[in-house]
Amino acid sequence: MDPLATGVSRAAVWTGTGVEVRDVALPQEADVTLVRVRLATVCGSDLHTVAGRRGGPCPSVLGHEAVGEVVVAGAQRDIRVGDRVVWSVTSTCGACARCRSGRTAKCHAVRKVGHEPFDGDWPLSGGYAEHIALPAGVAVQRIPDTLDDKVAAPAACATATVMATLEAAGALPGQRVLIVGAGMLGVTAAAACTESGAKVAITDIDRARVLLAERFGAVPDSGGPVDVAIDFSGSAPATAAALNRLEVGGILVLAGAVLPGPPLSVDPEAVVRGWWTITGVHNYERHHLELAVDFLQRTRDAYPWASLVSDPVGLDAADSALTAAPLGALRASIAP
Amino acid sequence: MDPLATGVSRAAVWTGTGVEVRDVALPQEADVTLVRVRLATVCGSDLHTVAGRRGGPCPSVLGHEAVGEVVVAGAQRDIRVGDRVVWSVTSTCGACARCRSGRTAKCHAVRKVGHEPFDGDWPLSGGYAEHIALPAGVAVQRIPDTLDDKVAAPAACATATVMATLEAAGALPGQRVLIVGAGMLGVTAAAACTESGAKVAITDIDRARVLLAERFGAVPDSGGPVDVAIDFSGSAPATAAALNRLEVGGILVLAGAVLPGPPLSVDPEAVVRGWWTITGVHNYERHHLELAVDFLQRTRDAYPWASLVSDPVGLDAADSALTAAPLGALRASIAP
Repeated sequence: MDPLATGVSRAAVWTGTGVEVRDVALPQEADVTLVRVRLATVCGSDLHTVAGRRGGPCPSVLGHEAVGEVVVAGAQRDIRVGDRVVWSVTSTCGACARCRSGRTAKCHAVRKVGHEPFDGDWPLSGGYAEHIALPAGVAVQRIPDTLDDKVAAPAACATATVMATLEAAGALPGQRVLIVGAGMLGVTAAAACTESGAKVAITDIDRARVLLAERFGAVPDSGGPVDVAIDFSGSAPATAAALNRLEVGGILVLAGAVLPGPPLSVDPEAVVRGWWTITGVHNYERHHLELAVDFLQRTRDAYPWASLVSDPVGLDAADSALTAAPLGALRASIAP
Repeated sequence: MDPLATGVSRAAVWTGTGVEVRDVALPQEADVTLVRVRLATVCGSDLHTVAGRRGGPCPSVLGHEAVGEVVVAGAQRDIRVGDRVVWSVTSTCGACARCRSGRTAKCHAVRKVGHEPFDGDWPLSGGYAEHIALPAGVAVQRIPDTLDDKVAAPAACATATVMATLEAAGALPGQRVLIVGAGMLGVTAAAACTESGAKVAITDIDRARVLLAERFGAVPDSGGPVDVAIDFSGSAPATAAALNRLEVGGILVLAGAVLPGPPLSVDPEAVVRGWWTITGVHNYERHHLELAVDFLQRTRDAYPWASLVSDPVGLDAADSALTAAPLGALRASIAP
């Protein structure tokens, strides 16, 4: 049956104890963009949520990294029915002080894709569903036909966040960059920093991931001073070690510490005398999503992006994809 | 007797146990710029040195904030005999990797005005002397006739460092700025941030200093979120409190922590989720000295700069100026 005709879709609902597939009514609001999900990748933060290490509305439809096809264009400008698209992780008001200051990711009325209550006014907020409903405040970005679903899906979280970290890191040509954590973001950052002309070293407690990162332009870290360090690990000891290796004028970009953890002990005299900078990045702005899609398109033949995502399982097997990291890949995927 | 004729000048030499005035031979090298010191202000760091809280070559001629008159132009371009000048705190090589990267303050061969051994090859390195010798690597900056010695002298340390902190702080118009520490740098920063269009609050453990800062555009701190915090106090608790008041996207500039002290405990998750930045500034670049002179000239009638510096004592009384902070002013001064 055609869901648009029946008005009913299906979604994998995280219930707090597991994931179960339920029927869901499609939204009827004229300004909502309705997208049929083609493929959703499973961000590590969703694994944390399902494992109970991260709070969030429950029950809910998780999933904030996906590719889909527009079936109702809603209020989105420049988007038509049939377009293949990715979309941002935030729905923002565009009017509050933070939105006006260019910090839409921290909009005072922000709502999160893949993190809204299933029993609220936005049940289809996540990508682990046959359809996702996108309010007008979500940025929707068309993607080129030449970009595979597996390559494009991480754009909306991993790749766009990496674009924001690179913007925070400043000029990269010729810089010695240390990347801490060789998960999806670290490996993506390795390629992005390499493409920006940096010399990239990477470290991770998992040696297999470091080997993987070597296919994305990085070399294994061998110590010594660095101009830029980017942390995706969230590990306090690893972050402290990176900080203390900064060259004069160096910068440490923190992006991995998104769970409560031990404090980072910073020597203020070292920061002062070293002209060091420590800066944080969380989520991203609309232009970072555009940069992410451009970057993946431009480098689609230079790096084995598709190898980072395991072959998709169906919606009925979403539970398995959400409870364990995939073997031999950095992201599981679901094709509803 | 004319020192240039006799080849002998006089300097207040810090001996480790006190300050004594000694005769010193004037340098004969053709590339050295010789300056007759008109007035030197006493930076708090020299009080720390004399009190034993800060290491440094000893014996030495201290003093790195002064105004003088050129008596031999040496290798300095655009400087002539008779010019009234201020000069940078660093002598830099201009050729090493750090100098070429724009971090001359951290030159691999840096030498410090007012911090070189008296028994070495640069005995007249400090401002507490009738003459100071400036190698070619020191930036020498002519000052307008309308700028009083008392107003101009702090340019080379306090004011130029404040210019560097403002550059690090980013755009200031409309921003809520908190200044921690209302000494010479804090009060100068209050005026500079005010002139840049910021709303400036200031805090200090000494209430009299806060009252003084009110004459330089600041209001007493009354809590609440801030966009920019600048620490000149070096106090770990005050710095931590300022950090935790940052608005999303806020920045904390550290400039006061120039002595070993307790670590700053930073919550990496707060840095990430708040897009916070912590950055350090130490000394400054040549253009900051130019900005400092321009700023003091431009605001000479807007703020009571001269009131910050006590009336000068002679060289023979340098000991008294170097062992106690002045009453009713932020800087003692010496007119050799």
